[in-house]
Amino acid sequence: MTRISDILLDRRTIRKYSPEPLDDKLLTELLVMGCRASTTGNMQVYSIVITRDEQNKKDLAPFHFNQKMITEAPVALTFCADFNRFNKWCLLRKAEPGYDNFLSFMTGAIDALLVAQTVCIAAESKGLGICYLGTTTYTANKIIDLLKLPKGVVPVTTVTLGWPAEKPEQVDRLPLEAIIHKESYIDYSEVDIERYYKMKEERKDSQQFVIENNKETLAQVFTDIRYKKADNVYFSKILLQVLKDQGFMEE
Amino acid sequence: MTRISDILLDRRTIRKYSPEPLDDKLLTELLVMGCRASTTGNMQVYSIVITRDEQNKKDLAPFHFNQKMITEAPVALTFCADFNRFNKWCLLRKAEPGYDNFLSFMTGAIDALLVAQTVCIAAESKGLGICYLGTTTYTANKIIDLLKLPKGVVPVTTVTLGWPAEKPEQVDRLPLEAIIHKESYIDYSEVDIERYYKMKEERKDSQQFVIENNKETLAQVFTDIRYKKADNVYFSKILLQVLKDQGFMEE
Repeated sequence: MTRISDILLDRRTIRKYSPEPLDDKLLTELLVMGCRASTTGNMQVYSIVITRDEQNKKDLAPFHFNQKMITEAPVALTFCADFNRFNKWCLLRKAEPGYDNFLSFMTGAIDALLVAQTVCIAAESKGLGICYLGTTTYTANKIIDLLKLPKGVVPVTTVTLGWPAEKPEQVDRLPLEAIIHKESYIDYSEVDIERYYKMKEERKDSQQFVIENNKETLAQVFTDIRYKKADNVYFSKILLQVLKDQGFMEE
Repeated sequence: MTRISDILLDRRTIRKYSPEPLDDKLLTELLVMGCRASTTGNMQVYSIVITRDEQNKKDLAPFHFNQKMITEAPVALTFCADFNRFNKWCLLRKAEPGYDNFLSFMTGAIDALLVAQTVCIAAESKGLGICYLGTTTYTANKIIDLLKLPKGVVPVTTVTLGWPAEKPEQVDRLPLEAIIHKESYIDYSEVDIERYYKMKEERKDSQQFVIENNKETLAQVFTDIRYKKADNVYFSKILLQVLKDQGFMEE
């Protein structure tokens, strides 16, 4: 049996999956474990949409920018902030729900993400591989249409799940001291930034990345290619409109 | 050695802590495991503020509505969406960051929450107890002042951490079928809601809760007392203002 610390420390994101199916009983086990995660006031204001059907995966793929994980993995899980179910219960019980606001969206999003990460750790402990798709917040409007999410429900993240068909090198992380602040936030000096990003910048794969993308620095690969301002501005507008449309921006 | 599935399934939130301190080496181990969680584009756009100092815990307490966990637990961790460090790196490397928008806030919040939940699971696997404080999104403005969080940084959740001095009964969860949707969202009928909430409503502690609060239904305890519309509206405004002030609502 593998120790939890080894599972958490040795993990890597898996983007290539074997064609082997994922047993429904095992998936259920993982989801039950996920639902034991902390949840605000025990309201469980989240839902999980399971995509297994080949055609549905194909339909979902463009909303995840056609990353091949979505069609290759046997299962994609879309984790949603969900006040719809809770609101319906309130209305059936002579209680007036007041959850059509931004705070409630955040509450649901937090709930959904704690479940997502618990399912992922449970999955990895069984030898499965996972990949988070950050595209969910970019195309939430389209995912809402496809998955038929009603008002009160907003997709927050998507995870692909399956048996690994690769064991990639583990990627780097910043040193822990770059991430933590003792008692209060100490802002970063130029010297700090130089020191904390040195290892990342000196990696062969980082340098390769800069050359391939014809850039001067690694940071430029992020700002000019991977996470561009124009895209962020565009998708921010859509996401804020989604929150309005799904009933989370009333005053 | 305990199996991961047992740790995930048998867990309960811990609100009473023994006075025993939490070793700094163990805390570091947990945080290192946390930082192995998936992170958008390996940007690690989060920070963790560690509160151990007695006076600082006392100062933090009112912003968590004086819940005693914050002063009793040896450690409180405030998990923040953080683009400040990443932006500073970009600027130092002739790269123009475009992360002053809502999408980027969500990216940082997602990153922060995956780390938070990983730290919690790592902690529980060592026998520690944890409690999430949902109050962080309510009083983010005050936490920002106290912890000196600069522009680009927003606190998303807080976790108290320590050795358990209680073993409370495990609380209920909705049946899994209430949470999951196969292929697409099937909206809930009245019959579904009745069935899914039956067990929760029939619990002795739920019924006690209704009587103590002088309400007619359990749902009313949520809407009229625990999570009231007026509070949600009020704190939503503050939180949206926080996002503006911290530089995440530019267009």
